[in-house]
Amino acid sequence: MTAVMNQTASREFSRIHGVGSFRPDVIVTNDDVCQWIDSSDEWIQQRTGIVTRARADADTSLLDMAEGAARSALASAGIEASQIGAVIVATVTFPYATPSAASALADRIGATPAPAFDISAACAGYCYGVAQADALVRSGMAEYVLVVGAEKLSDVIDNHERTISFLLGDGAGAVIVGPSDIPGISPSVWGSDGSRWNAIGMTHSQLDLRDAVLQAESSPDGTALVAGTEAQLWPTLRQDGQTVFRWAVWEMAKMAKLALEKAGITAEDLVAFIPHQANMRIIDEMVKQLKVPEKVIVARDIATSGNTSAASIPMAMDNMLKENPELSGGLALQIGFGAGLVFGAQVVVLP
Amino acid sequence: MTAVMNQTASREFSRIHGVGSFRPDVIVTNDDVCQWIDSSDEWIQQRTGIVTRARADADTSLLDMAEGAARSALASAGIEASQIGAVIVATVTFPYATPSAASALADRIGATPAPAFDISAACAGYCYGVAQADALVRSGMAEYVLVVGAEKLSDVIDNHERTISFLLGDGAGAVIVGPSDIPGISPSVWGSDGSRWNAIGMTHSQLDLRDAVLQAESSPDGTALVAGTEAQLWPTLRQDGQTVFRWAVWEMAKMAKLALEKAGITAEDLVAFIPHQANMRIIDEMVKQLKVPEKVIVARDIATSGNTSAASIPMAMDNMLKENPELSGGLALQIGFGAGLVFGAQVVVLP
Repeated sequence: MTAVMNQTASREFSRIHGVGSFRPDVIVTNDDVCQWIDSSDEWIQQRTGIVTRARADADTSLLDMAEGAARSALASAGIEASQIGAVIVATVTFPYATPSAASALADRIGATPAPAFDISAACAGYCYGVAQADALVRSGMAEYVLVVGAEKLSDVIDNHERTISFLLGDGAGAVIVGPSDIPGISPSVWGSDGSRWNAIGMTHSQLDLRDAVLQAESSPDGTALVAGTEAQLWPTLRQDGQTVFRWAVWEMAKMAKLALEKAGITAEDLVAFIPHQANMRIIDEMVKQLKVPEKVIVARDIATSGNTSAASIPMAMDNMLKENPELSGGLALQIGFGAGLVFGAQVVVLP
Repeated sequence: MTAVMNQTASREFSRIHGVGSFRPDVIVTNDDVCQWIDSSDEWIQQRTGIVTRARADADTSLLDMAEGAARSALASAGIEASQIGAVIVATVTFPYATPSAASALADRIGATPAPAFDISAACAGYCYGVAQADALVRSGMAEYVLVVGAEKLSDVIDNHERTISFLLGDGAGAVIVGPSDIPGISPSVWGSDGSRWNAIGMTHSQLDLRDAVLQAESSPDGTALVAGTEAQLWPTLRQDGQTVFRWAVWEMAKMAKLALEKAGITAEDLVAFIPHQANMRIIDEMVKQLKVPEKVIVARDIATSGNTSAASIPMAMDNMLKENPELSGGLALQIGFGAGLVFGAQVVVLP
């Protein structure tokens, strides 16, 4: 007869105990952008709401930013790194195939031997991470989980490209998820639509780059690399802006409504709305679709941060709580969406 | 006053409902390997236990292998793709920074709109995925979770490199985790040691490659790429074999013992031991350290598959159950370990 195994005791609820962020200090203005693409400060502000974006210099790595955000979240939560039971880093820009950014980060902040892994879910990465952290805490598999969204998008942009590059910034944001006496994270509404996998992504496969490089290295005069290529070989981001805009405005507003419904609350119960900072016009349209009441504070961090993908929501949350500390303990709706296409939404009790 | 939110009802237990795999059909022998490195079939068999490794041809992508394994696991579990509540792909070799392999896979198999994400935890990726799937099922966030380990390691090796490349194969393995009446997945023993981040990894950063390529593209005669470089520019895998071997044999045997202890069973209760297929000598040493009884079937898939990283355990499990269907319902100890360094172990009821 097969032996019956033990199982960990589960917990009823989880919540966010602290939030932190790291903002790099290279400020890229719209006038800077207009050196590379034919546009104007006025047009960019009108169409995207971005005034400046913050980017990291060559000496500031993705791990440096992740570490800054993680340390700030730990201080905010008032816990020690040794209490962390899992480290999740949501990123698409760590420049090593393996090992993960998370295992290096765990070591830097003193969270070793916590399990540590990176997740790839683009601009929904932070909300995907919160969904997993909620499951790990409630299932009793971890007491505290560090969720970091960290991106150095400036490494994978082409400044002369017009569909997405000028929107993007660098940065990191982090939260600590842990046990709670009341429901602090609502049932996650998360999903994917891989039929639109090509709507946002890289210009081409890393394997195209590899083949060109290996061919150049084996050619006697080294000219093969340039001779055979029209476009840049280093893969950079691009998007079908129209498709993404329509999907974000129509489909994501529905998912945000569903998150409220599953939480058992209405927009009237919110103190804050913190959508992924993709484009100010998407934020404005979602506010309209969701009938977000005037009293609710809406995150508009994009004006000075640009779109920082997985980092945008915790960066905006940290900023918002610094400016409005009275929101602590209130309910915030957060929704991330991006390449995949993927999305994730939750209502959370603000730390 | 803040509204109180709903929370999903949790489940007591989870288990593996089905397993599947995809083995590519290019057979690379030790004699093939000896064209590239100075060695012999005898030496390689003696030191690694590998007779042949299976690799994918240029037309077989990581996604093709992942799809094959996923479809085979779905059939084994007897569920429909529409019942899947989350798709997790553990991989370090998907050649796009974004979107994820998982969102494309979900679409291919008909699991859309399930949430879908990739995880980076190297050779522990499958066990990390099972830990997360267990948490998602038990916390009530998903009914069935598809966990796939898929690697096309042949894309990131240098055949002339001696520390790891000759060990590696390609392939994919998958399990379906879902609800259970009895404990089917023991408390996960998982962790990281980022202080040994450099023990296994890439030769260099993607950013070094980018800088060299951008410099070559902007040079008038295109020769910069080759002129400035001694080594290959395309990053490939390497390891400090001694460090990894010692860590795997000594530290991992301890973690495997801890997994048994947390499950509340002993090695006598096992019907199978399915360690990551890194090296036959590591497997033999672990069997000795753990005092695995003779009656327990030990996975030695590495002899014909090579080391397939995140794919190795589910591939070996599928193979073992095809050869020994009577093991179904018995307890198996699985342990993955690799670059990070990271590790994950569970006792599971075999599907």
